[in-house]
Amino acid sequence: MSRPAHRRPEYHKINKDLFVLTYGALVAQLCKDYERDEDVNKYLDKMGYGIGTRLVEDFLARSCVRRCHSYSEITDIIAQVAFKMYLGITPSVTCNNPSRTEFSLILDKNPLVEFVEELPAGRSSLCYCNLLCGIIRGALEMVHLAADVTFLQDTLKGDRVTEIGITFLKKLDEKKYRRKK
Amino acid sequence: MSRPAHRRPEYHKINKDLFVLTYGALVAQLCKDYERDEDVNKYLDKMGYGIGTRLVEDFLARSCVRRCHSYSEITDIIAQVAFKMYLGITPSVTCNNPSRTEFSLILDKNPLVEFVEELPAGRSSLCYCNLLCGIIRGALEMVHLAADVTFLQDTLKGDRVTEIGITFLKKLDEKKYRRKK
Repeated sequence: MSRPAHRRPEYHKINKDLFVLTYGALVAQLCKDYERDEDVNKYLDKMGYGIGTRLVEDFLARSCVRRCHSYSEITDIIAQVAFKMYLGITPSVTCNNPSRTEFSLILDKNPLVEFVEELPAGRSSLCYCNLLCGIIRGALEMVHLAADVTFLQDTLKGDRVTEIGITFLKKLDEKKYRRKK
Repeated sequence: MSRPAHRRPEYHKINKDLFVLTYGALVAQLCKDYERDEDVNKYLDKMGYGIGTRLVEDFLARSCVRRCHSYSEITDIIAQVAFKMYLGITPSVTCNNPSRTEFSLILDKNPLVEFVEELPAGRSSLCYCNLLCGIIRGALEMVHLAADVTFLQDTLKGDRVTEIGITFLKKLDEKKYRRKK
């Protein structure tokens, strides 16, 4: 199931509801397959990782983003360009530590849970949207940026917003990621 | 996981690649879960059925289609309005029998297989996109139209096009489905 080389690079949109319901079917299937929430979460993250590694090339080609010279800049691009392009929303960004390696994406509205009123019974530890964390992690790794990506808040767990935490794991090589003139 | 009543009815688009790759992850998971292709096909159809029953209400609200008075008209709406709205493509339609109850949707290009070069090894009977058949079947059933929906041709199996066959199972009650004046 590898990607053909002749694929056209056009930017294409489809209806969100079809995606959201299909994603729901995927999560429901994994909940059938794995008894423990942690295993479902892990598997969604792993699937997302694979998706992220494949999406990133197209993202870089389509978005025409320039090389970044700080983690803050990278996180802004994830929020303002990638989320907008793929999910039609723009999370706000906060920085969580003085060394500027930990950030949060705050989603006031999460399109992936639009058809979901609450977590399934007995699934209180399920990170329903964990695919997103995996996608971000996979995409970052493809540009040589190791990161931990996890949900810190989730409206499905009663939080007011959904918050995805991104912790970059290495000191940024400023030479490598300096902005191109 | 039921749908909240306050959901906004706006028409929203997302990036196709995210959907296509997520769908690929779903199919891969089902192939892990079920050894026999027929079981994967059946399960994809069943999942699609559930999705179709939920999509149809929004579809009718957004598309503003009028009541149809023939199966031919219904199939045209599936091809020209529903496929366009949800997958961004417009299949051509052929009628396959004189009593006009059997139709085909011919897809020159199938967005769901854009990242798929061939069927996975040992999976020659897999109907990779069977979710689509289930969605059509589920949506039709919600408007009281029983139908068989199956793949008749598939580019992933070496055919030149992808062809979805729709066989309507009951004589149309023309009174019920006559066009509104």
